[in-house]
Amino acid sequence: MLKEALIGTLCGAVVLTIGILIGHFGIQKNSAPSWVNDVAKDVDEALIQQFLSEVETFQLQENLRELTKVPHMATSPGDEETVKYVLKRWQDPETGLDEAWRQEYEIYLSFPNPTNPNKVTVVNSLDSVLFTVREREVNYTADQNDPQVVQPFAAYSPAGHAKGKLVFANQGKPSDFQHLNGTIDLRGTIAITRYGGEGRGRKAINAAAYGVVGLLVYTDPLDMNDGLMSDTNETYPHSWYLPPTGVERGAYSRDFGDLLTPYLAAKEDTYRIPPEDITGIPPIPTQPIGFQDARTLICALAGEAAPKDWQGGLDCIYNLGGPGFKPTSPFNNSDVKLDIYNEEKIVNSSNVMGVIRGSVEPDRYVIYGNHRDSWVHGAIDPSSGTAVMLEITRVLGRMVKQGKWRPRRSIIFGSWGAEEFGLIGSAEYTEEYFTKLSERTVGYINVDISVFANATLSASAMPSMQSVIFRAAKQVNAPGFDSTSVYDNWIRYTNRTSPTHGIIPRVGYLTGAGSDYAAFVHYLGITSIDMSYTYDRSKTNARIYPAYHTACDTFDYASRFIDPGFVAHQAVGRTAGNILIRLADSLLLPFNCKDYAESLEDYLNTAVNLYQKDLIAKSISMEPLSKAVANFRKEAEQLDKVIQSSDLANETPLKVRKINDQLMLMDRAFLNPLAFPNEYGFRHVIWASSSSGKPTFPGIADAFAQANSSHLASDWKKVHYHLSVVAQAIDGAANMLKEVI
Amino acid sequence: MLKEALIGTLCGAVVLTIGILIGHFGIQKNSAPSWVNDVAKDVDEALIQQFLSEVETFQLQENLRELTKVPHMATSPGDEETVKYVLKRWQDPETGLDEAWRQEYEIYLSFPNPTNPNKVTVVNSLDSVLFTVREREVNYTADQNDPQVVQPFAAYSPAGHAKGKLVFANQGKPSDFQHLNGTIDLRGTIAITRYGGEGRGRKAINAAAYGVVGLLVYTDPLDMNDGLMSDTNETYPHSWYLPPTGVERGAYSRDFGDLLTPYLAAKEDTYRIPPEDITGIPPIPTQPIGFQDARTLICALAGEAAPKDWQGGLDCIYNLGGPGFKPTSPFNNSDVKLDIYNEEKIVNSSNVMGVIRGSVEPDRYVIYGNHRDSWVHGAIDPSSGTAVMLEITRVLGRMVKQGKWRPRRSIIFGSWGAEEFGLIGSAEYTEEYFTKLSERTVGYINVDISVFANATLSASAMPSMQSVIFRAAKQVNAPGFDSTSVYDNWIRYTNRTSPTHGIIPRVGYLTGAGSDYAAFVHYLGITSIDMSYTYDRSKTNARIYPAYHTACDTFDYASRFIDPGFVAHQAVGRTAGNILIRLADSLLLPFNCKDYAESLEDYLNTAVNLYQKDLIAKSISMEPLSKAVANFRKEAEQLDKVIQSSDLANETPLKVRKINDQLMLMDRAFLNPLAFPNEYGFRHVIWASSSSGKPTFPGIADAFAQANSSHLASDWKKVHYHLSVVAQAIDGAANMLKEVI
Repeated sequence: MLKEALIGTLCGAVVLTIGILIGHFGIQKNSAPSWVNDVAKDVDEALIQQFLSEVETFQLQENLRELTKVPHMATSPGDEETVKYVLKRWQDPETGLDEAWRQEYEIYLSFPNPTNPNKVTVVNSLDSVLFTVREREVNYTADQNDPQVVQPFAAYSPAGHAKGKLVFANQGKPSDFQHLNGTIDLRGTIAITRYGGEGRGRKAINAAAYGVVGLLVYTDPLDMNDGLMSDTNETYPHSWYLPPTGVERGAYSRDFGDLLTPYLAAKEDTYRIPPEDITGIPPIPTQPIGFQDARTLICALAGEAAPKDWQGGLDCIYNLGGPGFKPTSPFNNSDVKLDIYNEEKIVNSSNVMGVIRGSVEPDRYVIYGNHRDSWVHGAIDPSSGTAVMLEITRVLGRMVKQGKWRPRRSIIFGSWGAEEFGLIGSAEYTEEYFTKLSERTVGYINVDISVFANATLSASAMPSMQSVIFRAAKQVNAPGFDSTSVYDNWIRYTNRTSPTHGIIPRVGYLTGAGSDYAAFVHYLGITSIDMSYTYDRSKTNARIYPAYHTACDTFDYASRFIDPGFVAHQAVGRTAGNILIRLADSLLLPFNCKDYAESLEDYLNTAVNLYQKDLIAKSISMEPLSKAVANFRKEAEQLDKVIQSSDLANETPLKVRKINDQLMLMDRAFLNPLAFPNEYGFRHVIWASSSSGKPTFPGIADAFAQANSSHLASDWKKVHYHLSVVAQAIDGAANMLKEVI
Repeated sequence: MLKEALIGTLCGAVVLTIGILIGHFGIQKNSAPSWVNDVAKDVDEALIQQFLSEVETFQLQENLRELTKVPHMATSPGDEETVKYVLKRWQDPETGLDEAWRQEYEIYLSFPNPTNPNKVTVVNSLDSVLFTVREREVNYTADQNDPQVVQPFAAYSPAGHAKGKLVFANQGKPSDFQHLNGTIDLRGTIAITRYGGEGRGRKAINAAAYGVVGLLVYTDPLDMNDGLMSDTNETYPHSWYLPPTGVERGAYSRDFGDLLTPYLAAKEDTYRIPPEDITGIPPIPTQPIGFQDARTLICALAGEAAPKDWQGGLDCIYNLGGPGFKPTSPFNNSDVKLDIYNEEKIVNSSNVMGVIRGSVEPDRYVIYGNHRDSWVHGAIDPSSGTAVMLEITRVLGRMVKQGKWRPRRSIIFGSWGAEEFGLIGSAEYTEEYFTKLSERTVGYINVDISVFANATLSASAMPSMQSVIFRAAKQVNAPGFDSTSVYDNWIRYTNRTSPTHGIIPRVGYLTGAGSDYAAFVHYLGITSIDMSYTYDRSKTNARIYPAYHTACDTFDYASRFIDPGFVAHQAVGRTAGNILIRLADSLLLPFNCKDYAESLEDYLNTAVNLYQKDLIAKSISMEPLSKAVANFRKEAEQLDKVIQSSDLANETPLKVRKINDQLMLMDRAFLNPLAFPNEYGFRHVIWASSSSGKPTFPGIADAFAQANSSHLASDWKKVHYHLSVVAQAIDGAANMLKEVI
């Protein structure tokens, strides 16, 4: 009995144990809801590796071929073809996005009159034409025969007729005209200036201030061609250099966004300012020309020789102009005449938008964009960037369509229209969706020209993005190397010593308005990056790739001279896509505010060195600014400690959301819509454009330059004002990083 | 054997079952983390009932007694006493908040000179004084003997001496001076005007435009005393009516916030504009006086009788002035002379801040505030509100200290300084913490004067708050009734018919800048409410409670004539605290955007009725505005459906956060900092102040009034501009409600 009882008990115990085990493990309990794991998911490194492996050079090449079949200037029939192409790609059932659509604006553009082309001539006193500037560039490839190739023109130059003696005004800077005016009475003259050194539209504004009545702008071979000039063997199609008849087109406007609807979206019924109220465009007829024609004009100029640093690459001494031509020249006593027939029109322009919905935080956006419109075929500008964007969306789209991936946050892709006329498509988009984008956008990635050249990565960004850029660049192979990363290659070309990180690649600042990041940075205060592959500066001094904005910027040019094999395109696509995935998928946003602090400290040191002595003499203290920067540093360090000491994957998802919101919204505190009353679009008081050219707080730098030149008490007050604006903005940003309550 | 086997099997089965049960229920499994329940917690109705039961009239009375012991004009020693008292209460270990502190600003205030008081006299041609206006009010209670009682003055009136013939200018509106100018050459005159009908400071600005050199402002007994005038038996201390010598003090400035540091926080080193650049303050010496003295002056005026609707409650015919006095009066040929010695100073002012940290969403703030400074003892204005705030913090603070409660979101209490001088403490606070407050604040509750009178609740708010106000008001007993709710009492006094809800109490709009909600509403776009108990309008026509801004606004006055028993204080405290708890604790924010849609529809209908015909004639379409309002309605309905169909307590907490962010941030989309370039502080294009007085979109209404009066094409363009601004703002707000991607 004892034995039986023992066995019975044992059996009972075994059965009980089995029961307990079944009960505990075998039956689904009221356990953690399924979303508990979803909300804690972090970026998947294997997925990033898969993404990198799927970005293909062949696809990039075919994207570019398709995008550059015809010229696609904004709102032209060719532009409409690219709209449809991008839409088709993003609506592809195998590799498309969740949704894609067209977003339209009615915008104010400027075009040459196709039946009455702009003319630049030399005429004698009887008005006989002695010389005519080419109306079109020489065709070197079949591409350029396309009737849609637009005549070179200065967009937003007024139509009109101007005639006068020619003078050479270097780069058309205020100082250039000031110098020239010391020698020559500029009233009634025509000025010829070279590209560079000053914004396009500002050259004409500067000229008109001295009574100049018409302006020519040309590309000097010294600035673009490393001195080479001959199209028989030196320039395109023999190399990447600009042929003698190549002409850089461009928008000659100062402000970004539609010029008739400032700070409002350009819808059909939107209020438009009268065109005569537009500011920042040429007040006088203006036309760009090639250096072949510029040589004919400049080398015939009379007058004294221009200063040494005004001399360019043409094979003659550059004289200032008598005004006008040498008595020994066939143009003796002749005028230069501009007949400009540009027409302004309100036309329909499309952005193409596409989205991948976020799974966990659909109300957080990562935006990736580039413009779609070009001046002619625009193989490099902007189609090299669009080719990259379409390859990124192909790879990610397929993962989504196959159900293998859905980002944590939503991804929005923007193929902007009419960037070339002043960043219009992206600016109107930010105006239409201002609050929504401002409140929800984690970051903006801009890849316009993806490959200027195939030597090294180049990036400009808010400093808080530096670490994620580096992380991504370390995971991508540099083109042309077997085992060197984009990062290791980059650091060889451009680097700096950071007090925190030692020697690192130099990431630039987004201080200008050179591409569609402008509205995101300056108007919305969104943490942004602009990136590309670029030059080996030991090999060229070209101001930019030489076919820029000319009819030579073709698929042939891009694939033979800029990026043979499309390996630089691939490297950019991999790096940008990697950053994109990290912004979209990371549990904790990969923003490092201590790097922002380092940049503010740099700016502060520069400001103190440049201005403190003079400001003390005016009883203006820089102390609040120093304190604000120190405060920002302290709060950035403190937030970092909170992050390091947290177990974010296991705490409430509202904790990581709280920290992410701090990181995301910090940059918004730098916005002050009233800081620059002449340019309300520039609201970010750290990165706004500055005319002083000093690497420091732009409002302070410009106000100081003004006060230091005028010596007016009221101008010194403005320096004090900008000190308060910047110090309070930095304190405001520090408050965003501070423990929330 | 069979039986034994059967029993064995049965036993085995029983043991197994027991095992399974133990295994399943008895052993802690790797189940849901503890925060899963925390993040889903909703408002606790039992806690609200507890709160309501703990708000005590005795405490309210004692709070008021303490707060009104001495006069506490901003930055005076009495103000400092109240700072210390509020701090002591909020730092109390039993009933205080988590933390409380003092927040200081250096602000520009205006005071009479204590040793050289302002003088108003009647002088004859030899400059002999025939009559002197009282410098101080008659003392009726011991309170008024306090040496800290400030002489009646017009804050921000310039110091100066003005002498001239007297004229009566009604309320000092532009139309009043225009009318008067038709009869009398106003240059060099002194004008006397009554309070009401026009902002204080604007009366002086309007006067100066016609050459008036000095201004008196008095309280007409018709406007304030229902005609009663005698202090022997009719006015305070016999009733709530203003005694004959009572004088309303006030800020005579138009803009809110520190006048020297617009849009910047007034810290020690902040840039200050030169005082001569201040706009919106009296250009001429100005002084308020009582109706006893006003009677002496007005009843002696010569000239023709003033229009019928200018006649007031004094016992004589109001003449316009010869200019000057009747030949039969002892003042014949005499002038009125103002000797004003006001001094402006930059002084240190404190807000007192306190917080209760949120448990689940510490980065979401509910802010509750009132100013602390008064003109004299300020029993009603503002201490009745501060008494309520301190009672709310006592009850909530005790719950927190006892560990019984911690709100989901953080609660910030603000006891603002220097409101009476232009909402300065609250405005500087919003300037200093602009981005932080804008990004994190769920709502702002303002209770300034909590009890104007004890008849009925009155509330003004963003329309999305209507439902939570109603809900709270239904849970509170109306004072004076056993079983009537504040809501049921309210609806009897003021109601409207809503297309959706039928007959409901009328909630006003926060279109003005009458208290500290202004910066939150107009500058930050934060969903706000301002509330109080108020008059039975069938019993009085008083413009406001008669002791307003006078030395009679004492504890005695408040407790005997305004709210005997402090039951109205209690009702306001209960209602406001109930709303506060709901904003802080509700899982889903209690904001109903369909009610916002209803208000926009009302505004639209008014605008269409008033303007459409004329606008069509000018080829300006209202269609985009109609579409935007319809769009807002559609998205509000759609969001409501999403909310109704969701199981927010069981879905990821990021879903309810997403919806709450939509509800919280929608109002921000109505901000346009450039819409009103003369008043950048007014950015909310729906609720901004309007001079046209039409219940519709303020920018459109004012632009239309201007265009309709000037008939200038450029003014009609401004109407179109404001139509675009408002339509795009409403579309932007609709975008915030729309499904986020």
